[in-house]
Amino acid sequence: MQHAKDDYAKGSWLTYRPEIKVLDCTVRDGGLINEHMFEDGFVKAVYDALVAAGVDYMELGYKASKRIYSRDQYGDWKYCDEDAIRRVLGDDTERPIKLCVMADADRTDYHDDILPCEQSVLDVIRVATYIHQIPTAVDMIRDAHEKGYETTCNLMAVSVVPERELDEALGVLAQTPVDTIYLVDSFGALYSEQVRDLILTYLKAVEGTGKQVGMHAHNNQMLAYANTLEAIIMGSNRLDATVNGMGRGAGNCPLELLLGFLKNPKFHVRPVLDCIQNSLLPLLDKMEWGFRIPYMLTGQLNQHPRAAIEMRNGDHPDDYLAFYDELTEEE
Amino acid sequence: MQHAKDDYAKGSWLTYRPEIKVLDCTVRDGGLINEHMFEDGFVKAVYDALVAAGVDYMELGYKASKRIYSRDQYGDWKYCDEDAIRRVLGDDTERPIKLCVMADADRTDYHDDILPCEQSVLDVIRVATYIHQIPTAVDMIRDAHEKGYETTCNLMAVSVVPERELDEALGVLAQTPVDTIYLVDSFGALYSEQVRDLILTYLKAVEGTGKQVGMHAHNNQMLAYANTLEAIIMGSNRLDATVNGMGRGAGNCPLELLLGFLKNPKFHVRPVLDCIQNSLLPLLDKMEWGFRIPYMLTGQLNQHPRAAIEMRNGDHPDDYLAFYDELTEEE
Repeated sequence: MQHAKDDYAKGSWLTYRPEIKVLDCTVRDGGLINEHMFEDGFVKAVYDALVAAGVDYMELGYKASKRIYSRDQYGDWKYCDEDAIRRVLGDDTERPIKLCVMADADRTDYHDDILPCEQSVLDVIRVATYIHQIPTAVDMIRDAHEKGYETTCNLMAVSVVPERELDEALGVLAQTPVDTIYLVDSFGALYSEQVRDLILTYLKAVEGTGKQVGMHAHNNQMLAYANTLEAIIMGSNRLDATVNGMGRGAGNCPLELLLGFLKNPKFHVRPVLDCIQNSLLPLLDKMEWGFRIPYMLTGQLNQHPRAAIEMRNGDHPDDYLAFYDELTEEE
Repeated sequence: MQHAKDDYAKGSWLTYRPEIKVLDCTVRDGGLINEHMFEDGFVKAVYDALVAAGVDYMELGYKASKRIYSRDQYGDWKYCDEDAIRRVLGDDTERPIKLCVMADADRTDYHDDILPCEQSVLDVIRVATYIHQIPTAVDMIRDAHEKGYETTCNLMAVSVVPERELDEALGVLAQTPVDTIYLVDSFGALYSEQVRDLILTYLKAVEGTGKQVGMHAHNNQMLAYANTLEAIIMGSNRLDATVNGMGRGAGNCPLELLLGFLKNPKFHVRPVLDCIQNSLLPLLDKMEWGFRIPYMLTGQLNQHPRAAIEMRNGDHPDDYLAFYDELTEEE
């Protein structure tokens, strides 16, 4: 098997890198659209599809603090309590897919709410952090690691982080026991050349540590899949995607595109098509996800998609001109 | 102004290449969805938007043979007769935007239907050809050139052309008076690395001739914009796009994304948003364009989207599974 084509390409067209693992965050990122109020049957259908598709990891939702997020405003997948997961996915601790949750820095009672790994069906804790929360994130990583979990750190909104701060943050994270550090394009603002530079920066920061670098893209500029491919080319081995690109706002890298590209025969696109057709399309009359002009505009301006999401949920979801004028006047 | 960032990048983030020109093919490629039956007001609205946006070229449709394509089955923009263009866009021969038509090899009565340039409001003849039609295309290029037109050659379906044949074709075209040779990803099948290699191949073929290399992408794999960016990075200076990505099947590189990326201050995205909001969205209840799963599947298989278009127009447009099984059984 050939693992290097030329100086920058890490694979070739007819071989594959067995190190590449795919993480599906449909239920977690999609849950941001509907306050995590998915029905059990939907979560089970996605799970079954991912297992059949050969996907390596499934992210279910958040470990949100019940002090901060009132239980009556959100569905089960905001908290991912052990009993909710076991109710839907059973009690097995040996599964063909690893189960993950995201824990937001400063919004998770991680000491209490994250059980020791051997008491949980969960396998991976993904610590999401903004740059200023890194000290908290480091403590969360250590806590989860000591409890026996595989861990990732998802450093968000990196398109607005100055290089020097990024280098410092990566230096700190490289000294933690975290298994994977993710490049997270929260605003869907990165272009391919930036993805290349950033993945190289991340890879350099973890060199010699055995840690992996992951890619989590958003589709605001219709580049989520393309940027994920660039990350693969540069050497990223942990790839986030969602079924049909479902996710807040413009959504994520579509899993069906990614699996269609990856050559590892363990991956299968057919179960994902089944899931889209039978479980996701029926949701489209109450939930919206995917590329839209307002997300393009916030992406081009390297802004959080907050304003675009509000606009799409408001009374004039197609008044692109008014939204453009509002955004550019604020500049 | 800086024109080279490093070995492969031809621009930088804060400067721009004034050589880059944008060609809008909304009315031509979009016309493939509705047999070119656009109302005059729509064509004029697109024209006005493109002029205001600073776009360099507007493609109106085809110069189709009336012997082959019956006049009662198609709208005016299948033929682009001089009187139709003048009726909608006026008689000016000096315009802020160049008007183009596409002429398909073997489907155009070019000797008769293409007037001498000084008698026409048209500026550019774009010769579309499959690899086996190159001798005809060369004759069409010479004919249009002698009549005074700027010319392009759009060599279609290049993702299924063997390298040796492509090299021969480019060698032949380089000796014609054609002004621009386009890399055309008819099946939306190319990945960024292939775009890079192909643009370099095209650039090498025209080296020293003063000819330009263009990019015409399709969105079957959601890579039309990303691949157009790759073409820019590699040195392509002629970029095709369409308003809202309107075009047959999965459509094209969205103009609003491209203009949002290009830094030349002559380009403006606001008129394009206006056009989408007021002229394109109202068409969505009778026309469909843009990324859909069936186009992804034909793109991944490097096939013409014909079967996917039929499937979307049929009785089961969302039966992805049946379509997938049909496609993969044919393999």
